[in-house]
Amino acid sequence: MRHDHLISAKQLSRGDIEAVLDRAAEIDADPGAVAGTHADTLLGLLFFEPSTRTKMSFDTAMKRLGGRTIDMGSVESSSVKKGESLADTVRVIEGYADAIVLRHPSEGSAKLASEFVDIPVVNAGDGAGQHPSQTLLDLYTIRQNAGLDDLTIGIMGDLKYGRTVHSLAHALTNFDASQHFISPESLRLPRGVRYDLHEAGAKVREHTELDAVLGTLDVLYVTRIQRERFPDENEYRQVAGEYRIDAELLEAASDDLTVMHPLPRVDEIAPDVDGTDYATYFEQAHNGVPVRMALLHEIL
Amino acid sequence: MRHDHLISAKQLSRGDIEAVLDRAAEIDADPGAVAGTHADTLLGLLFFEPSTRTKMSFDTAMKRLGGRTIDMGSVESSSVKKGESLADTVRVIEGYADAIVLRHPSEGSAKLASEFVDIPVVNAGDGAGQHPSQTLLDLYTIRQNAGLDDLTIGIMGDLKYGRTVHSLAHALTNFDASQHFISPESLRLPRGVRYDLHEAGAKVREHTELDAVLGTLDVLYVTRIQRERFPDENEYRQVAGEYRIDAELLEAASDDLTVMHPLPRVDEIAPDVDGTDYATYFEQAHNGVPVRMALLHEIL
Amino acid sequence: MRHDHLISAKQLSRGDIEAVLDRAAEIDADPGAVAGTHADTLLGLLFFEPSTRTKMSFDTAMKRLGGRTIDMGSVESSSVKKGESLADTVRVIEGYADAIVLRHPSEGSAKLASEFVDIPVVNAGDGAGQHPSQTLLDLYTIRQNAGLDDLTIGIMGDLKYGRTVHSLAHALTNFDASQHFISPESLRLPRGVRYDLHEAGAKVREHTELDAVLGTLDVLYVTRIQRERFPDENEYRQVAGEYRIDAELLEAASDDLTVMHPLPRVDEIAPDVDGTDYATYFEQAHNGVPVRMALLHEIL
Repeated sequence: MRHDHLISAKQLSRGDIEAVLDRAAEIDADPGAVAGTHADTLLGLLFFEPSTRTKMSFDTAMKRLGGRTIDMGSVESSSVKKGESLADTVRVIEGYADAIVLRHPSEGSAKLASEFVDIPVVNAGDGAGQHPSQTLLDLYTIRQNAGLDDLTIGIMGDLKYGRTVHSLAHALTNFDASQHFISPESLRLPRGVRYDLHEAGAKVREHTELDAVLGTLDVLYVTRIQRERFPDENEYRQVAGEYRIDAELLEAASDDLTVMHPLPRVDEIAPDVDGTDYATYFEQAHNGVPVRMALLHEIL
Repeated sequence: MRHDHLISAKQLSRGDIEAVLDRAAEIDADPGAVAGTHADTLLGLLFFEPSTRTKMSFDTAMKRLGGRTIDMGSVESSSVKKGESLADTVRVIEGYADAIVLRHPSEGSAKLASEFVDIPVVNAGDGAGQHPSQTLLDLYTIRQNAGLDDLTIGIMGDLKYGRTVHSLAHALTNFDASQHFISPESLRLPRGVRYDLHEAGAKVREHTELDAVLGTLDVLYVTRIQRERFPDENEYRQVAGEYRIDAELLEAASDDLTVMHPLPRVDEIAPDVDGTDYATYFEQAHNGVPVRMALLHEIL
Repeated sequence: MRHDHLISAKQLSRGDIEAVLDRAAEIDADPGAVAGTHADTLLGLLFFEPSTRTKMSFDTAMKRLGGRTIDMGSVESSSVKKGESLADTVRVIEGYADAIVLRHPSEGSAKLASEFVDIPVVNAGDGAGQHPSQTLLDLYTIRQNAGLDDLTIGIMGDLKYGRTVHSLAHALTNFDASQHFISPESLRLPRGVRYDLHEAGAKVREHTELDAVLGTLDVLYVTRIQRERFPDENEYRQVAGEYRIDAELLEAASDDLTVMHPLPRVDEIAPDVDGTDYATYFEQAHNGVPVRMALLHEIL
């Protein structure tokens, strides 16, 4: 993967994924070994949309490798509001930074950016498209907690709009995983994603209720159901309430269940789950650092 | 104080304060001695409210120690606006940073944050609550210019809402200080703070006019009277005008008077004071760097 | 220029300019030679207006020299909105940083700031005033591509409001350049600038159409015509359309023509020019790094 762009989880083979995950595990075990390896590297952070976790963990990852970052800041404080095109912006930044991490509201923006520059571009979320570094840290977390082979995973919540879900589901087709998708009818996986998964030979089942499969799961991956997807506030509340988990509900789960969430969460996981052994979502967020260190190490 | 949170000036004993102030004086005298001591440290800056001085001086302090910072940016550019709780935000950042500096509009927020993480949390202002690192730099400035023992200090302006004032007044009870509080009736020290000071054995007197005590003061600590505290613009102007100082007014003061202000100022101190020997407010702001270097050195 | 402020391109002699440009060329040829030379330097970035290029390239320049930066952030996230004066802000920052880079909407602000502090202030744009580091990178780009002596340059677009244009035009009077100004009647060079150029002995001609001179130019410097300068949208479109260049139009130019633009561009240069040998505007933006490294190297 050296000197390549990372645009989509789809471009990653099982070998690519395992290389990053193995490197991340090494870094996790001994962060000091890579601490000063990128002292002359400058990473450009271009976030055209709000972000806490992704931006700060890339920032952390670069700095833990000894490098530095330059940050475009918010769109409001940049020349973007003067009407500059994304192609122009990245061609300028190419002269400053050694690689670009890009988040942008338009699907396909990272691909487009990568066609205009000779430095690596990492897609940190392009609208409803892809978010491959999130997928890598998700896979890393699954591997650490449940293993990637013989995995039975439930993915629940907003399966229609969640780019995290689409990337993860596709990446799991590289492994021997059974995927259960749990959502209200209105937030099912898009037809295109279902087709893709089918083509890739994925073992997929869809459900409208968690009860049917909870006991069989190694991992339950919960996502946020966004209020703004529902025209009616009451309908939102009812749907969100049905796909909310708490400690009591998890009594029906295996003791080894790993509960994940890409965060931020609002109400999907009750705080009483936080103290249980199921809760792995903060560890998952923290895994963003070694995984992104490994990723930067690979492409720089 | 090693590996502890710094939430309130109230938690600091005279010994704690003197340890930080002594260290700050050492650093001030020879910044080079600590320049590279924290090369592997990453400080998380979480400012949920605007700040120039506090944020930039923590940023400076960490970098002057050789460390690095990661910045959440403004609330508008973070996941906070997606509805994430403070407890979740800090638990995520805990995986990135070695310590957290937190400013938040809600009183008690720093305490709450500290209960969710195992890394040190420094309160950089929690609503009308505390701002202990400001207190430490205030004490440092007083010690350098007037000494902390046998001190006669006047604290003037908005004594009702100013967290800076409450923290400083309480911290001074560790020393042998006479405290004079000068304010309009409507902006007197809150009853709870007066009670606290009384319990701590403080020597306190309240005044509505500066004239009565100006000649006796070693230090005059001026604070900003905020327009938004007054329903009526005219009343604001009248009150603000009465608690404004200028060079002429200071002719009645001791030649050794030290004039301080936490900044930003608007109209409370006339520009003609800036060039006098009284003016110590820029030096006070600059002291934020060695004091915060000392503080970070203690807790990291 | 050591330990001086850089407020205006007018303060730069031919010798000053050549010293910075020579140093920039050395850095360009061997960036490693200066990589760690400013490890203890902290540069304060104070941008009271949006910026991508200027801010990020100063940030990059400081970091490529081994130094660090502290960033005030946007006005909205700073104490400026509490009503603090610029003089107070820079006097505070003086205690944190070793030099200040300032962008501010008011003409004369950088000059004013420089009168209040003892550390170097670099003007990164003061309203309709000056932007001297832009001028230095423009001169560097011209020297690399066409040479500064015997130069024939066309400067086109908004000549009335463009601070970039005024600074560049004045700086070119240090060299033996023929300057052609091409603009609609309503956006001509201001009388004061014309007078200044005349006094400095500049060889200046003004045109309303590019055709008349295109074939004679070594450099064509294009600037953005801003929509908000026109009360009428139709008039804007007509004017902007007449001063737009594309690959077809450039067939009438010399093969050696260098096309420059300070960026961001909106529609002034068609994308079909990007792939031609004329296009030098991205190289020009990239030159901001070595030129600002050289500048910081000179003043720090």
